[in-house]
Amino acid sequence: MKIAIAQMPVTTKKDENLQTACRYIHEAATAGASLVILPEMFNCPYTSRYFRDFAEPEGGHSWQTISRQAAQEGVCVVAGSMPELSGERIYNTSWVFDREGKQIARHRKTHLFDIQVEGGQHFRESDTFAAGSDVTIFSVDGVTMGLCICFDFRFPELARLLALEGAQVIVVPAAFNMTTGPMHWELMFRQRAVDNQVFTIGAAPARDKKADYVSYGNSILCSPWGKVLTRAEGEPQLLLAELDLTQVQAVRQQLPLLKARREDVYALTKAGGRHCNQSSG
Amino acid sequence: MKIAIAQMPVTTKKDENLQTACRYIHEAATAGASLVILPEMFNCPYTSRYFRDFAEPEGGHSWQTISRQAAQEGVCVVAGSMPELSGERIYNTSWVFDREGKQIARHRKTHLFDIQVEGGQHFRESDTFAAGSDVTIFSVDGVTMGLCICFDFRFPELARLLALEGAQVIVVPAAFNMTTGPMHWELMFRQRAVDNQVFTIGAAPARDKKADYVSYGNSILCSPWGKVLTRAEGEPQLLLAELDLTQVQAVRQQLPLLKARREDVYALTKAGGRHCNQSSG
Repeated sequence: MKIAIAQMPVTTKKDENLQTACRYIHEAATAGASLVILPEMFNCPYTSRYFRDFAEPEGGHSWQTISRQAAQEGVCVVAGSMPELSGERIYNTSWVFDREGKQIARHRKTHLFDIQVEGGQHFRESDTFAAGSDVTIFSVDGVTMGLCICFDFRFPELARLLALEGAQVIVVPAAFNMTTGPMHWELMFRQRAVDNQVFTIGAAPARDKKADYVSYGNSILCSPWGKVLTRAEGEPQLLLAELDLTQVQAVRQQLPLLKARREDVYALTKAGGRHCNQSSG
Repeated sequence: MKIAIAQMPVTTKKDENLQTACRYIHEAATAGASLVILPEMFNCPYTSRYFRDFAEPEGGHSWQTISRQAAQEGVCVVAGSMPELSGERIYNTSWVFDREGKQIARHRKTHLFDIQVEGGQHFRESDTFAAGSDVTIFSVDGVTMGLCICFDFRFPELARLLALEGAQVIVVPAAFNMTTGPMHWELMFRQRAVDNQVFTIGAAPARDKKADYVSYGNSILCSPWGKVLTRAEGEPQLLLAELDLTQVQAVRQQLPLLKARREDVYALTKAGGRHCNQSSG
């Protein structure tokens, strides 16, 4: 399976961002990708004061633009994330479209990004966003994939639940910054891959040094053995890569971590009897 | 708090190993350490055919030797691990002694190391050992510490439970090999530290290229930010390091991961209503 990670530039103009996204989707499809992944906040700067103005409901203009482009190019698209308006609330939401442009999954960021690093990055998503409560999987060409957004991936419980739900790949639209990126980005994608014996994919906006929030970029693909298979730097780039899914089975057989879990010692479950946020795909 | 990690050589002679351990404990105490950590299988080669012959019950000769040395030197000791005989069973067991030589914790390895990497390491602990069912914490000078052994630390659930039980430090006697060591050792100690906002300590036997199982060595201490604070190579070495425990509070405040867990979305609990394997210390 060929995948494409769109490390696209994001500006303060929504239409420009949508055009850019469509261009990356076209290029990915032309290159033979089955799946294109856009970055977190691909249609809106990652800056609190823009979120409400840029927010649209499910089925709105941005949603439609990407859905249409997926259908037109015949490629599945993880539409990174964008601000979603739902009643009075806004969410940081990722929609997934199949080759016909049909929505097959929706993930609302479940862990809001509130940090205040001394001498480093400050941010408070919870001032603007409401939090989702999702454990989200979908499938592409028979391959089960987990989906979460950026800060969500900091939490090993969520990643593990995705693996237990059958994910062989975990897809993460994300935008680390120049504080947490160099410290933790690659480390996290590698270790979550090793722990859960999955491919991990991080899709970030390209770095814009003049932006209020400077994305680290460094979009990445890691193998189930924890190897970095491909990785961008800060510049805009469409990363193309082949996933050899037989590796998932191979690592699970040779180093049987998922099988060796001690469910009699610890229990990890979805709380509140909620159902998995899955649609067929 | 000053800690010492004893990356000691291990031979096929039990008494020689005990003498070596006592010498490292003496050196650590002399250097002012509050806690000394011995490696996994510090009194026995990490090779299946030795485990039953070397096994001793709790309170046996090796147990007594380390207990006495802890008391004599006035230092707490995590006695790495050794084969424990209990009825017909043997466990891979770590005992912890306080400054008076009193046992304050016991951890029986809970995840047995069965791997078969193509062109790499093969091992089947489960042929010889029985598995414990422990979530083990203890405390030294008011600092709560989690304890697990090597393969146990591969499982994010167990590390997380230790943090939720209050661990500020997770201590891991371990012996990765020349396949998994270069791939996963540092990565795991760094990411578990970041995820759980704790110091992580790995104590490994020195590398012996002539041994049946070649230990990777590379004993390590990582900060709650995921930085490698100190790390050995393959050679025998006593690593000394200062833990600045204010860092634990600092990182938990600036990057509040533990607080941001979504217990309404996932639940991680000790299964079966078991109690934490803690003694006062």
